[in-house]
Amino acid sequence: MHTQTAQRFSDRLADSIRRAGAPVCVGLDPVLERLPEGATGETPECRIVHFCRSVIDAVAPFACAIKPQSACFERYGAGGMGVLADTITHANELDLPVVLDAKRGDIGISASHYAAGAVRLGAHSITLNPYLGPSTIEPFLDAGLGAFVLVRTSNPDADRLQSMQLHDGPTVSESVAEMVAELGASRIGASGLSDVGAVVGLTKSADGARLRERMPDQVFLVPGYGAQGGGADDLAPLLTQDASRPGRGVLVTASRSVIYAGPGTGEHWADAVGEAAERFRDDVGEAIQGG
Amino acid sequence: MHTQTAQRFSDRLADSIRRAGAPVCVGLDPVLERLPEGATGETPECRIVHFCRSVIDAVAPFACAIKPQSACFERYGAGGMGVLADTITHANELDLPVVLDAKRGDIGISASHYAAGAVRLGAHSITLNPYLGPSTIEPFLDAGLGAFVLVRTSNPDADRLQSMQLHDGPTVSESVAEMVAELGASRIGASGLSDVGAVVGLTKSADGARLRERMPDQVFLVPGYGAQGGGADDLAPLLTQDASRPGRGVLVTASRSVIYAGPGTGEHWADAVGEAAERFRDDVGEAIQGG
Repeated sequence: MHTQTAQRFSDRLADSIRRAGAPVCVGLDPVLERLPEGATGETPECRIVHFCRSVIDAVAPFACAIKPQSACFERYGAGGMGVLADTITHANELDLPVVLDAKRGDIGISASHYAAGAVRLGAHSITLNPYLGPSTIEPFLDAGLGAFVLVRTSNPDADRLQSMQLHDGPTVSESVAEMVAELGASRIGASGLSDVGAVVGLTKSADGARLRERMPDQVFLVPGYGAQGGGADDLAPLLTQDASRPGRGVLVTASRSVIYAGPGTGEHWADAVGEAAERFRDDVGEAIQGG
Repeated sequence: MHTQTAQRFSDRLADSIRRAGAPVCVGLDPVLERLPEGATGETPECRIVHFCRSVIDAVAPFACAIKPQSACFERYGAGGMGVLADTITHANELDLPVVLDAKRGDIGISASHYAAGAVRLGAHSITLNPYLGPSTIEPFLDAGLGAFVLVRTSNPDADRLQSMQLHDGPTVSESVAEMVAELGASRIGASGLSDVGAVVGLTKSADGARLRERMPDQVFLVPGYGAQGGGADDLAPLLTQDASRPGRGVLVTASRSVIYAGPGTGEHWADAVGEAAERFRDDVGEAIQGG
């Protein structure tokens, strides 16, 4: 259970946003075939450890959180899970909040097991799927984790389910947004942000205003920046109206456009990753100032 | 990629249903605190390995599939993933089809990584979440896995999202059922069953007829038998109209009521598990004969 003395996830994230200067998160989606040659090691697992640790070191001054994609580690079995644990440990050593991108969703008792697994890894928050209902989100909150609930995802065919119109007016994703706001209402920190956030893809920013209206206190974890085609202009509808909220209530993530900035730069690949993270931080910072 | 020579998941499952005599699946949800004393080992991981292997041996004559709950293994980190791999390997040694109960759901490239992870473990099928749309299901099928898509789950507050009424008539879960049938239409085996099945909780059998109408060729993976309160009578609305379909198109699962049948039986705990599996097989067999 979450102890009274531990800092809330949302407040911890708010501190990190202030330190980094903009609400940007770097996604760690390591794929063996795409690693720069400079990420060396005796085994595939060692190469990924080297890569993830170096990326974290390079982006730490500019990013306010790290988001490892669980699938990229799980595909390598028990060895991959060891690499994931090492990666999260290293982020903790640098005091970087960790969003475990695992998109879990299961009935209560299984949700408790997933939550225990995430806590054991050292993660501070996790992405979750709402299809099974609120009781499948709560065990993660009870374990002291922050949550980012999938509301409106960036993939093109997300509309198939998320944009369906309900008979009483809103869409499915708007109704999920209401569920997220209800779950988060009792979990708001000193920063004014809730421990229960939402995933809202940048490519779906046309829906942003209706979602923000329903989720004024939520941090929106916003994928789709860079490689997936969204840009700074799409960010405005997702921001909180209240300009005093840290990061205007968003946490913009980029993965491939930052972590694979290095190929062709030889042994200096990690410098290129750091420079890409700095540009990303500056871009998002400007967009938020102007938003 | 799935090779032409490999048997389809649905046909493999159909063969296994014929061999076992009824469409029953045993869920493996090992929780350290609940293991019978007779499941011994030097480390917690060794005790779980001993337990899972013994349960599989005990239920193999009566069950047509094994469904490990990924959360129960993931909570023990890399060591737990090793136990999961061992468990699935042992089911393969006894030629028992494996449903990996992982409830994954992520965008295409991450879905491909999850699929690669499941194939590496030796699973034959996996439970999946539909919230992100059809493109997040397809990578698992392309990897040669069967899929059971969450349509109508057994937990009480599943209604929050799944029972919402759409403006053009059906509920959200009925619309998901249509998506599942579309995905499965091109993947029907010699048995008449599709590789794309659905999770439909026994406690929600009131919705069964409307879901079966939309998914005539799907195998319904049906949790909620025993510990969760559903019984054989609830099964009738979920069965296919076509009595020639293997198992009448259902795969009924029980976990705790079978795998924890052993406590108090000392060193003979695994015999009690086998007897519980045999009763479960006989109960479901009778219900299907009468359905």
